Amino acid sequence: MGETTTLGPTTPFTDMDNLAINAIRTLSMDAVQQANSGHPGAPMGLAPLAYTLWNRFLKYDPADPSWPARDRFVLSNGHASMLLYSLLHLAGVKNGPGSTVDSVPMSEIMRFRQLHSRTAGHPESHITAGVETTTGPLGQGIGNAVGMAIAQKWIAATFSKPGFEDLFDFHIYAICGDGCMMEGIASEASSLAGHLQLDNLTLLYDDNTITIEGHTDLAFSENVAARYAAYGWHVLHVEKGNVDTAAIAAALADACQTRGKPTLVDVKTLIGYGAPHKQNTHAAHGEPLGDAEIALAKKFYGWPEDKKFYVPDGVYERFQAGIGQRGATAHAAWSRKFAEYKKQFPELAATFERMQAGELPPGWDQDIPTFPADAKGIATRDSGGTVLNAVAKNVPWLIGGAADLAPSTKTLLKFDGAGAMQAATPAGRNMHFGIREHAMGAIMNGMVLTKVRPYGSGFLIFSDYGRPSIRLAALMEIPVIYIFTHDSIGVGEDGPTHQPIEQVGSLRMIPNLVVIRPADANEVAEAWKAVMPLQHHPVAFALTRQALPTLDRTHYASAAGVARGGYVLADAPDGKPEILLIGTGSEVQLCVAAYEKLTAEGVQARVISLPSWEWFESQPQEYRDSVIPPAVTKRVCVEMASTFGWERYAGATGAIIGMHTFGASAPLKDLLKEFGFSVDTVYAAAKQQLQK
Amino acid sequence: MGETTTLGPTTPFTDMDNLAINAIRTLSMDAVQQANSGHPGAPMGLAPLAYTLWNRFLKYDPADPSWPARDRFVLSNGHASMLLYSLLHLAGVKNGPGSTVDSVPMSEIMRFRQLHSRTAGHPESHITAGVETTTGPLGQGIGNAVGMAIAQKWIAATFSKPGFEDLFDFHIYAICGDGCMMEGIASEASSLAGHLQLDNLTLLYDDNTITIEGHTDLAFSENVAARYAAYGWHVLHVEKGNVDTAAIAAALADACQTRGKPTLVDVKTLIGYGAPHKQNTHAAHGEPLGDAEIALAKKFYGWPEDKKFYVPDGVYERFQAGIGQRGATAHAAWSRKFAEYKKQFPELAATFERMQAGELPPGWDQDIPTFPADAKGIATRDSGGTVLNAVAKNVPWLIGGAADLAPSTKTLLKFDGAGAMQAATPAGRNMHFGIREHAMGAIMNGMVLTKVRPYGSGFLIFSDYGRPSIRLAALMEIPVIYIFTHDSIGVGEDGPTHQPIEQVGSLRMIPNLVVIRPADANEVAEAWKAVMPLQHHPVAFALTRQALPTLDRTHYASAAGVARGGYVLADAPDGKPEILLIGTGSEVQLCVAAYEKLTAEGVQARVISLPSWEWFESQPQEYRDSVIPPAVTKRVCVEMASTFGWERYAGATGAIIGMHTFGASAPLKDLLKEFGFSVDTVYAAAKQQLQK
Repeated sequence: MGETTTLGPTTPFTDMDNLAINAIRTLSMDAVQQANSGHPGAPMGLAPLAYTLWNRFLKYDPADPSWPARDRFVLSNGHASMLLYSLLHLAGVKNGPGSTVDSVPMSEIMRFRQLHSRTAGHPESHITAGVETTTGPLGQGIGNAVGMAIAQKWIAATFSKPGFEDLFDFHIYAICGDGCMMEGIASEASSLAGHLQLDNLTLLYDDNTITIEGHTDLAFSENVAARYAAYGWHVLHVEKGNVDTAAIAAALADACQTRGKPTLVDVKTLIGYGAPHKQNTHAAHGEPLGDAEIALAKKFYGWPEDKKFYVPDGVYERFQAGIGQRGATAHAAWSRKFAEYKKQFPELAATFERMQAGELPPGWDQDIPTFPADAKGIATRDSGGTVLNAVAKNVPWLIGGAADLAPSTKTLLKFDGAGAMQAATPAGRNMHFGIREHAMGAIMNGMVLTKVRPYGSGFLIFSDYGRPSIRLAALMEIPVIYIFTHDSIGVGEDGPTHQPIEQVGSLRMIPNLVVIRPADANEVAEAWKAVMPLQHHPVAFALTRQALPTLDRTHYASAAGVARGGYVLADAPDGKPEILLIGTGSEVQLCVAAYEKLTAEGVQARVISLPSWEWFESQPQEYRDSVIPPAVTKRVCVEMASTFGWERYAGATGAIIGMHTFGASAPLKDLLKEFGFSVDTVYAAAKQQLQK
Repeated sequence: MGETTTLGPTTPFTDMDNLAINAIRTLSMDAVQQANSGHPGAPMGLAPLAYTLWNRFLKYDPADPSWPARDRFVLSNGHASMLLYSLLHLAGVKNGPGSTVDSVPMSEIMRFRQLHSRTAGHPESHITAGVETTTGPLGQGIGNAVGMAIAQKWIAATFSKPGFEDLFDFHIYAICGDGCMMEGIASEASSLAGHLQLDNLTLLYDDNTITIEGHTDLAFSENVAARYAAYGWHVLHVEKGNVDTAAIAAALADACQTRGKPTLVDVKTLIGYGAPHKQNTHAAHGEPLGDAEIALAKKFYGWPEDKKFYVPDGVYERFQAGIGQRGATAHAAWSRKFAEYKKQFPELAATFERMQAGELPPGWDQDIPTFPADAKGIATRDSGGTVLNAVAKNVPWLIGGAADLAPSTKTLLKFDGAGAMQAATPAGRNMHFGIREHAMGAIMNGMVLTKVRPYGSGFLIFSDYGRPSIRLAALMEIPVIYIFTHDSIGVGEDGPTHQPIEQVGSLRMIPNLVVIRPADANEVAEAWKAVMPLQHHPVAFALTRQALPTLDRTHYASAAGVARGGYVLADAPDGKPEILLIGTGSEVQLCVAAYEKLTAEGVQARVISLPSWEWFESQPQEYRDSVIPPAVTKRVCVEMASTFGWERYAGATGAIIGMHTFGASAPLKDLLKEFGFSVDTVYAAAKQQLQK
């Protein structure tokens, strides 16, 4: 069974290929059956497509799943996870560069969907090498793939030199299903992909017409191909995706050669192909087929019916002769060439390597300003824009933009050469996501997985539109940066549809997401210093529309306390406070003014600025208790947002000044009066606490 | 200036129409300038379109903005609110049926964007008569319009009788902008509208190519017309939307006559039309034009430059001769005909009237079952499906479905005649929303605004996908019903992408939304009894995938306590608890079992079931204190979700057993062990509390 030639796009298909395809199918069926849970139908239908892609096209070195120049494969219909695990297993993808251990050995396939396995129900990139992104929530993978394609375009435009173009050239392939195609996020991302002419992107649509409720004709009768043509995509068709590997290969070859447009391949398949009673029905979608049906399917495939987790002789070798040999050869050639590139362009190479490692360039923070004390002050969206520009100037791969709100969120990079990221100018650093908050999030996830550092901005209220992607960033432990502005009823006249009430708290509730609501310009600056080194946490800034005083830090504590999430901004003269005033963001100024008033009266008060609950709660208990002493139970907490969750800091008897309803449309000064946010209300609450 | 004929679709346009159009433009400019805040450009560009629609086509009686047979007008680009307020003002729409007061008198236009005005920054349906739905967050209005169109189809199919068809016939018109078109929710809703062949829906696309960041060519170069054709829509074009009212009228006439498809009219306009320095630029979008520019625009319109809030002679009369006369005539004819219908079909008419009033039919709750005690029990998704069916059988206008998850969420209506709601069977009650959670929410909002009572279901994790629409339901105070299942890590093997952690709490954080997490089948039944009479609160159920014991209510307190949000389920034998065990949903059983163990040991323990925080917190303080006595500070709270927010009930020293991270993919029994949810952990926490 020894293979003598390397398999590629034009190698004819043989029985050995069919054997490999059926190995994917049977591994998937067996794993789902053993787990008694999972989705066998999609892997069975998609095996020929995925096999052809992986073993004939994908530029991928199984020995190093993090090779920067690898083609990316995204399984947007993540419930078909056994398809991906089967491929990772059969291709012998290692558990990281230099590892001798498989990412998905057979033992892990046999532990599909078990606690602490590397074969989770849906693929999770932070636990399984070779999984490029975490998918499952539908449509997300399409956005991720678009983000990866954008990142590739940016990387190529930034690092390529004549003769070295192929170092930074790779293609992004994504498989998706009907569910992905119905989700709005896919529409948003696909429209932008067409606009940006991402010809490095191929979307393979598993057009099996079956969803959980039944046939797609229950709810989905649009012409997907025509829709994608309207987005400006190249559209191809494969009529018999379950058998016609030659047609699949022809379509993939066409997609790879297409210039100026992303490609959609509409691949007709049968879900559960080969299972005689369940194929082409939703019974094949989301539950084990059962032993009897599996036996019949194996019979149909010409498989030994009694064998489970069986990989026939020659199948591993077939993958080795295809993706294995092609990848090893390409990777070796790449390494030689990159060494030469490094000689000729040492600075660029160093930048590229640093970016790949997730490190920051020396002096990255040297231009972050300190803001002078200023009673009138500036909005944190404005100081945020200033600091962002100061950081981005020195971190070349920090790129991003807004969901059509940059003039309001102040996130435009204005220094020389920043430029707009467009099809004709892919090295530009200002992205225009369009009014597509959800896709923006998924695209950022794809970008950061491709090692650029993305930021995305919008009004805080619209974080709701992109919440599923924010959550996935937190789950994947990837450092995307959200810059949300207009963070409270400070929005004013735009009214309750645009005034966040529950958004700050809702974001705080997402595990692993760092939410930061700075009190003034210097807290913004200090926050950025702490944010940029993060490698495993996404961040969401909550910045104001309205001006905030820049506190006099010679009088109050240094803003460097932001890095600990919460700190004593102003303390009781004797260091033993009888009352704590705790605020975040725009309300810290109210605490400070009330503090001054109380201090003038001889009250021992302390002001605590609490910009990031996550960071504060990650501090040692000792530090936390030093900031918020448990014994001091007279407390006033102020935040122009839902009070929900503030009991954590107010304690059982503290006062919480916050929002209990939606806001209203009015000038800010009227809203502050209407909803009770003033120095007087904080002061009065403090006095009441003191009388307890 | 007296008008002698009624203006309609075919009446030629005269200078008086132009005067009316320019009155809309100048009112909009003046109001934004006076507020020093707002969006003048879109109303200026859209005035001819909106005027033609309202004064020549719309079947609408200004004397009664709640007339059930009125055509609906949705302004999806809600920032153009002054367009709508100008129309409501000029058409003399009253502040409710029978009211002699205008909904938007000139005094309110002059108070645009001021506190407690009826002219909020974005239109809000619960404060301004004639505003059909609250818009502003982009794309939502398109979903609302689709929901209204679905409701109309259902109403017509349900109530029409030969000769009486026009009683239930109305058309839905929506205006939207580029922003709406980019949002994924619009894609989802439009795809479903095409599928359902909603020929009662016309979407008017303000194709002005300007967004906040600049020209749409920055981010949006798709062919919108071709995209809508791919959805199965009829597509029309108006090239000169700023001047060519005849072309607008022709397109509207075409749209009204089209059968079997919704219509998109692509209307090219210039944003800020008439403002010489700002038209066709983003400077006209979201800020006042300034007095100088306004003067120049007025000059261009042939308007007295020095007059503000000026309505020339004849303009009010022009509206009266158009929408006023047509509407009054049509309404009167409708009332006569409905009286006849009522004679011939008294039951149907009574049902229709009850539905319009938001009342429930007699005996609507008679078939809600009581579930017998059962240690093995059933999942609340299953009891939920049973109760839903029992209610829906007796509430004919309770209709809904799932985002392609009905077999899992158990929300299919199974009784005779329920049927599927499809183009060919519009009286069906089972809707198939497709995998479109966000559109599902906006569609439900549109449906309930059209007086049917909708429910929509999905996995709780995917509430994130539809969160902006859920929020708008809460803001609008409309009683949509969400049935979210798979409400915790109880999801099991599907893993962290599908396991809600922060969702229950995040939903609780939305003002005015009632979240209910029932502990067993009888709490489900009691919850539905309390949910159905709600008229001003949306509801979100959180139901389990896994089976829960049905508690023996002869031994424990009645589940009727659900209506108060929280209640004492099992009390200390002496009625004076020393420790409180507080849980919701699936964790109440853990509290009960721990309680039995503690009670056996002689501990005075109390179990509190807390299915709805919102309902509980709306109870008198006295009741709340009777359930959770402030003096009893030994407490254990248990919920298989983020602990965030639980300090409210745990107090400063109580124990909170919950989730602190994302979940994992594994069988439920392993997850319960991994994350510490068992009778033993609750018992141990209680013992620790008792030792305090």
